[in-house]
Amino acid sequence: MYQPRTAVIGAGISGLTAGKMLNDYGVPYTCFESSDRVGGNWAFGNPNGHSSAYRSLHIDTSKHQLSFRDFPVPEHYPDFPHHTQIKRYLDDYSAAFGLTEHIEFENGIEHARRLPGGGWELTSQRTGTRYFDLLVVANGHHWDPRYPDFPGEFAGTALHAHDYIDLRTPMDFSNQRILVVGLGNSAADIAVELSSKALGNTLSLSTRSGAWIVPKYIAGRPADKYFRTSPHIPYSWQRKIAQWGQPLISGRPESYGLPTPNHNFFEAHPTQSVELPLRLGSGDVIPKPDIARFDGHTVHFTDGTCDDFDTVIYATGYNITFPFFDPDFLSAPGNRIDLYKRMFVPGIDDLVFAGFAQSTPTLFPFVESQARLVGAYAVGRYRLPEPERMREVIVADQQRYTGHMLDRPRHTQQVDYFLYEHDMRTRELPAGAQRARVLGPPPWAQVADTDTTTVGAPR
Amino acid sequence: MYQPRTAVIGAGISGLTAGKMLNDYGVPYTCFESSDRVGGNWAFGNPNGHSSAYRSLHIDTSKHQLSFRDFPVPEHYPDFPHHTQIKRYLDDYSAAFGLTEHIEFENGIEHARRLPGGGWELTSQRTGTRYFDLLVVANGHHWDPRYPDFPGEFAGTALHAHDYIDLRTPMDFSNQRILVVGLGNSAADIAVELSSKALGNTLSLSTRSGAWIVPKYIAGRPADKYFRTSPHIPYSWQRKIAQWGQPLISGRPESYGLPTPNHNFFEAHPTQSVELPLRLGSGDVIPKPDIARFDGHTVHFTDGTCDDFDTVIYATGYNITFPFFDPDFLSAPGNRIDLYKRMFVPGIDDLVFAGFAQSTPTLFPFVESQARLVGAYAVGRYRLPEPERMREVIVADQQRYTGHMLDRPRHTQQVDYFLYEHDMRTRELPAGAQRARVLGPPPWAQVADTDTTTVGAPR
Repeated sequence: MYQPRTAVIGAGISGLTAGKMLNDYGVPYTCFESSDRVGGNWAFGNPNGHSSAYRSLHIDTSKHQLSFRDFPVPEHYPDFPHHTQIKRYLDDYSAAFGLTEHIEFENGIEHARRLPGGGWELTSQRTGTRYFDLLVVANGHHWDPRYPDFPGEFAGTALHAHDYIDLRTPMDFSNQRILVVGLGNSAADIAVELSSKALGNTLSLSTRSGAWIVPKYIAGRPADKYFRTSPHIPYSWQRKIAQWGQPLISGRPESYGLPTPNHNFFEAHPTQSVELPLRLGSGDVIPKPDIARFDGHTVHFTDGTCDDFDTVIYATGYNITFPFFDPDFLSAPGNRIDLYKRMFVPGIDDLVFAGFAQSTPTLFPFVESQARLVGAYAVGRYRLPEPERMREVIVADQQRYTGHMLDRPRHTQQVDYFLYEHDMRTRELPAGAQRARVLGPPPWAQVADTDTTTVGAPR
Repeated sequence: MYQPRTAVIGAGISGLTAGKMLNDYGVPYTCFESSDRVGGNWAFGNPNGHSSAYRSLHIDTSKHQLSFRDFPVPEHYPDFPHHTQIKRYLDDYSAAFGLTEHIEFENGIEHARRLPGGGWELTSQRTGTRYFDLLVVANGHHWDPRYPDFPGEFAGTALHAHDYIDLRTPMDFSNQRILVVGLGNSAADIAVELSSKALGNTLSLSTRSGAWIVPKYIAGRPADKYFRTSPHIPYSWQRKIAQWGQPLISGRPESYGLPTPNHNFFEAHPTQSVELPLRLGSGDVIPKPDIARFDGHTVHFTDGTCDDFDTVIYATGYNITFPFFDPDFLSAPGNRIDLYKRMFVPGIDDLVFAGFAQSTPTLFPFVESQARLVGAYAVGRYRLPEPERMREVIVADQQRYTGHMLDRPRHTQQVDYFLYEHDMRTRELPAGAQRARVLGPPPWAQVADTDTTTVGAPR
């Protein structure tokens, strides 16, 4: 058994599941976490600033769908758990599999440099520089707020959904003229929360692309129980069926005064909200098209209308950011990063990305699926194809998952979990194992079974 | 044309529509209103205390259904208007038909005495005693809070939904352990509003009978657009069809942890809420059965569980109360009052009730339908059958509308608007006009066309 010195950056769901699978294969590893706790985005009020959770947030995936396959969500949990329950679930997961002892808290990676010929020089907050054979990057992609760029200056208060906590935090959101920008899940949740007539706000919602809105429940069952993409039916057919059924389930956005989406249903991530259509239909939320420009407190919209606002909340998504890499080594401009199976950069075989996808219906079992490969890869039971072949597959996969989608930073990483997991389990892992049998393990894994607790120099 | 001196008690939707139809027939009348404004229940913060509206309240009926048939809701209104918009609609209605000049504001009736042989002696707040030929009672039935009676004493704060205004009024509803009692529309709305994790409350919802919960939208259209009872198909068949379709639309209450209703769908007024099922499924609202007893801050439930609470909110409905009648003249014990066509007490032909029903889907066109008969009756174009016949019809109608319903104070007045209006228009008004032709107008309408501005003595 090979035991590469492995580093994992981040102890959110991606880092934790990667660590669990590394543990399973007996791979020694160190997880570097900048915060004092696990959970990342799901650690509400995370002192490292990497949680975007608001106080009222419930996960938009039902408990049985979001469950890790090897650690079920407790049966007594509600269908759509609160973020505090997700955090407890992750704490329990860490405790059950002995993950916490591998984590160096408040010791985030500040600089990661790839050595000539392979291997990593990692500099962390507290413990200086150390060397590793394999690096797993799991620092998440829901923590660096993305702001749109509109002409003009807005004279009121502007903030990002990332900083929104509740009705009174970070500011008092009552008796305000509020504009929420965006139509994703956070935009919908925040618009609903702040639009109650009880708060005395007027609330407008500006959207550029529009969105399809789907409920969390259908006929008394969590809606996502009905949707399970099959790997055995062409994906395009399944999209067609969904597009046919959608108006019966939740109606067209125009029914609620929203613009016609500039894409068909199922061609971009839908927004899950039972409440937003009602608030639109009740006049509590006023739909607006895209912003044309700012002028003091006045916001001009692309349909020629304008209105005055005190506060603008940007629910406009997040950047994929790797603050520890030199930008000319690796970055994700426009949130685009071409990864083989959303995990590997062709030509850099001692670097693995975990959790860099927008997985439908949820990221939880998706990162677990990736973690299975992380473990197998670390011990040499999986080997990558040649870089040229990897590039071909990246293009083909991209076409498969997102070729029908809008070309937007938010959608570059769209993946269907059911198809992805099926592909990994039935094709990719067996093929990689076969390659490993033929070629032997990759160079970085060919380390003898030495005392791996020694933090050593580059090999 | 007969012109009985007519008094109307109340300037809510029932008094206003009655006044409009009296105007249409040229009947002189005085409307006595205890408040300084029209609108009754829909005048949020009504100084006479007769509004039960909370700040966030939207009407649960879509605008085209609630529209008065002779004064359409403005097209620019949202599907489910806010109470401020309903109030404006009633103001516009009053102005358009010149109703305000007939209303004596802040001059509510304090005592109404029927004179021997007929006619009314009315004593009002400001102007002493006056005499009228015909009395229209339209003082509403959603203003006198009904409290259930449980054993024991609750040591925390108890209030009725009638007094609930918003998150901060009449008290600060944050960081509290709250129990909402009831599962009607107010219970659902208040439970949703106070259960957001953003407020720091824990919220339980206690229900005795259970309820069926239906959404406000189905497939992008207001749900009530789909439901229109037909007078041409047996009512029991229509109930069966609705009972068959209900689980497909909104699921069974058990899916959300609520008790099985002790009645079938359509056999009692359903609760309209898209948000409550989600809050139950998210664990924000904890379902509880009926209360067994109080013990200090502890509430014991009928399933043997108990929990501690700071605040109990009774969303348990309203009493039908006529404070101006001597109780031994007329009252509604257990909210039961047997009225012919929900308007007339057999044997008292100079007294008309307006608006005393729980009309599905809404009271607005229902009171307008009643008002048409009020106007026709006042001028002698409609005459009642004999008291004995009236009593027979009361029993038959009660069986038709509510025979299938629970025997609960809340449901004693259930009426289907579509069936009621059809019956009034095609049967009751023509039959009453025929009776009037044969028998002549009733005694109190046989007043000569005298100077009716004179406030005179009993005739």
